[in-house]
Amino acid sequence: MTNIKRLFDGELQVVNMGSKTFAKELAAQGVGVVDVDWQPPAGGDSRLLDALDRLEGREEAEAANREAVERIAAARPVLVDLQAAHRVVPGMTGRTILHAGPPVTWERMCGPMRGAIMGALLYEGWARDEKEAAALAASGEIVFSPCHEHQAVGPMAGIISPSMPVFIIENVTHGNRAFCTMNEGLGKVLRYGAYSPDVISKLKWMETVLAPALREAIQLSGGIDIRAMIAQALHMGDECHNRNKAGTSLLIRTLAPYLVRTATPPDTLAQVLSFIDGNDHFFLNLSMPACKAIMDAAHGIPHSTVVTTMARNGTDFGIRVSGLGDRWFTAPAEIVDGLYFPGYTSADANPDIGDSAITETTGIGGFAMAGAPAIVQFVGGTVADAGRYTNLMYEITLAESRSFTIPQLNFRGTPTAIDLRKVMSTGVLPHINTGIAHREAGVGQVGAGLVRPPRVCFENALLAMAESVK
Amino acid sequence: MTNIKRLFDGELQVVNMGSKTFAKELAAQGVGVVDVDWQPPAGGDSRLLDALDRLEGREEAEAANREAVERIAAARPVLVDLQAAHRVVPGMTGRTILHAGPPVTWERMCGPMRGAIMGALLYEGWARDEKEAAALAASGEIVFSPCHEHQAVGPMAGIISPSMPVFIIENVTHGNRAFCTMNEGLGKVLRYGAYSPDVISKLKWMETVLAPALREAIQLSGGIDIRAMIAQALHMGDECHNRNKAGTSLLIRTLAPYLVRTATPPDTLAQVLSFIDGNDHFFLNLSMPACKAIMDAAHGIPHSTVVTTMARNGTDFGIRVSGLGDRWFTAPAEIVDGLYFPGYTSADANPDIGDSAITETTGIGGFAMAGAPAIVQFVGGTVADAGRYTNLMYEITLAESRSFTIPQLNFRGTPTAIDLRKVMSTGVLPHINTGIAHREAGVGQVGAGLVRPPRVCFENALLAMAESVK
Repeated sequence: MTNIKRLFDGELQVVNMGSKTFAKELAAQGVGVVDVDWQPPAGGDSRLLDALDRLEGREEAEAANREAVERIAAARPVLVDLQAAHRVVPGMTGRTILHAGPPVTWERMCGPMRGAIMGALLYEGWARDEKEAAALAASGEIVFSPCHEHQAVGPMAGIISPSMPVFIIENVTHGNRAFCTMNEGLGKVLRYGAYSPDVISKLKWMETVLAPALREAIQLSGGIDIRAMIAQALHMGDECHNRNKAGTSLLIRTLAPYLVRTATPPDTLAQVLSFIDGNDHFFLNLSMPACKAIMDAAHGIPHSTVVTTMARNGTDFGIRVSGLGDRWFTAPAEIVDGLYFPGYTSADANPDIGDSAITETTGIGGFAMAGAPAIVQFVGGTVADAGRYTNLMYEITLAESRSFTIPQLNFRGTPTAIDLRKVMSTGVLPHINTGIAHREAGVGQVGAGLVRPPRVCFENALLAMAESVK
Repeated sequence: MTNIKRLFDGELQVVNMGSKTFAKELAAQGVGVVDVDWQPPAGGDSRLLDALDRLEGREEAEAANREAVERIAAARPVLVDLQAAHRVVPGMTGRTILHAGPPVTWERMCGPMRGAIMGALLYEGWARDEKEAAALAASGEIVFSPCHEHQAVGPMAGIISPSMPVFIIENVTHGNRAFCTMNEGLGKVLRYGAYSPDVISKLKWMETVLAPALREAIQLSGGIDIRAMIAQALHMGDECHNRNKAGTSLLIRTLAPYLVRTATPPDTLAQVLSFIDGNDHFFLNLSMPACKAIMDAAHGIPHSTVVTTMARNGTDFGIRVSGLGDRWFTAPAEIVDGLYFPGYTSADANPDIGDSAITETTGIGGFAMAGAPAIVQFVGGTVADAGRYTNLMYEITLAESRSFTIPQLNFRGTPTAIDLRKVMSTGVLPHINTGIAHREAGVGQVGAGLVRPPRVCFENALLAMAESVK
């Protein structure tokens, strides 16, 4: 009884969990109350709780996840070459166009993706003008397929057509390869759906001038360790998704001594170097396929609950899970919460788009924001928020990276290997930081910010996983 | 009486200031005690307290300091050229050798400085071998003079001889210039006192191959804004004294498009680019003269108590103060507290040496460590320490930089313009991070760490300042 007496005699200090109504009522009566943002596992949904129960602690899942984590840790992506996509990307036959995110038909594609595809048809010479391009795209003669199903990734619309040169990243540990186009820079660019003649002629310059010079330099270098470069960039304020200034700088200083030994004439060399120097995101198109090469090595391990793909096509968000093979779990893509460039608002924003969330899937990007405080000037929020995002991601991951560390967290490894089960049991969704595309083709980037995947992708994947162990 | 009663009835929670004896006694009796590391202004020294009293709040000092702060803020150092020292450095006539720190005679010079001077005599062809060099150096025929008195700065021994090429930094706001040699890289180098034939031939290569290529590139560029480059590097994990990886990267990407347009043959270009890429401290020899150009603009303002020079020659530490003109206030240099490379200990260390503390004098380097957490792997301490060092320096500075900001501190400007009075009234000495030279000539760097200036430099400057306003 003494404790009860104390409770009623003393001043109340209340911790409220769950429904906020109690907290509000108490606060209104002047009672000190701390509101804990708690929710029951799996939102209290009994089907999901059953699925979680079935998957938690299963030795086959634990072993599979240890294997996945070990493969992620051991993978070493190296830039080895740069070739036309049709020569190296598997399944890139005939009139195939790859795009970002999960599968999507022409009819359901968003504005920027449609524009980018029309641009690719013009670039390939399959159409002579906008009208022909639109008709051809809608005709059924073009095969549209996700980059992710062809060992490739692409930022924003993520379009890869057969003639486009792609970086070749080889995971020298496991032997798999990943591909990505070169970054076009800012402003009016194909990946945001622009397809005007200047956009196409820049792509042609990249194919005929930039690519040959870079190809020769990369070959002379004998291979560039992109894992090591990402590790350094993370100590230099990049998170290697929306801040790539250090990565781009490191790439230039590494390539320059080889570039000057190529057959490229001096004026062209100067153009090539200025082009890369003029675009702090040039390195994004290397960090993305490096991450793809890492995560593909951990994909397809039976029973593993590690999320190996998060990708968006501007209409749908889709995830894939190591133990569930090539099945996509999709839901409508969200609008990004972020900072808009002058003159634009969220009304201009296309829903979340691009394969660049492969960085978060690998434990960098939004997962490494604690090490990239300057990025808040670009994606919004505070420096403290950036630290909190990273710290929160340890709740839903299985490991801390051995390669990628964060000085600000006393060199702790970044949160790596998202566990589908942890996402559902904690209710914490992955944090992705990303660029925002205008919803109309060709306007370009209108801002940058933060977004989370739709929860239902993870719910459906969890149910499928549980189904598979029945 | 009620308060007294409460005091003796309740549990004591004591705040102890000053002598630690009281705190210890209380703690021994189980009393909660917080020990505040307080000391009386000027260490309680009555002469210094008088001097402080005389200088505090004087309108002429306040106005002079406002002017100094404004000049520091407005200064914009730009890299405009690279020329042989004898062509551009004032007073570099006949057999003059410049060195780091305050004035020092051959007899009192430390090992690394003697070695570097002997190397310079060999490099200039004024001596044919070690023996001749030592004899000439001791003969009185060579004029030794501090870099700082010739608008120049040099890391470690800081030797500048007439034939050495020097970067020319122009403060385009105020028109003054500053000079610094090119960084030779790591290992056996002149600035650590090495003078073997390979050291001299590398210096000759730098003079005859590296310098002409860089000179042409710098001239083609029309000038490179080093203030802007430092500002970016500070957002990329550099503090621009002992971590210059981002600065060096930014320099390479900026110079490369011009370098390839010079008349330099491709193989030489590759050597030049590889040489710079191989040395993450290359940018130090630009951040230092940029800081010198900034601080020289604030030097020589009557009544200003802003410290405009902190420099060491390996024997003495010296400071100069804006309002006290060219007078040096010196005291024996300290041993650096730091991390040693394998095989070395503090017994191998030369006392603090070099002009690189010009970075701290300008509010970067040790003053900006909060933005460079990765540096603790090099200079020791923890990431939290790095943040504390920066925060503490706001106690002794007059302003926050408008150009140089720290993302980790929510983009607060770095602590800038050390006020002699604040150093003495708070008892807080500037934090300098620095490389550690072996005490014998030519061994090279043996570690890196943190050091503070001798307090007596500031005491004597304060007394001189007070004297001047009698």
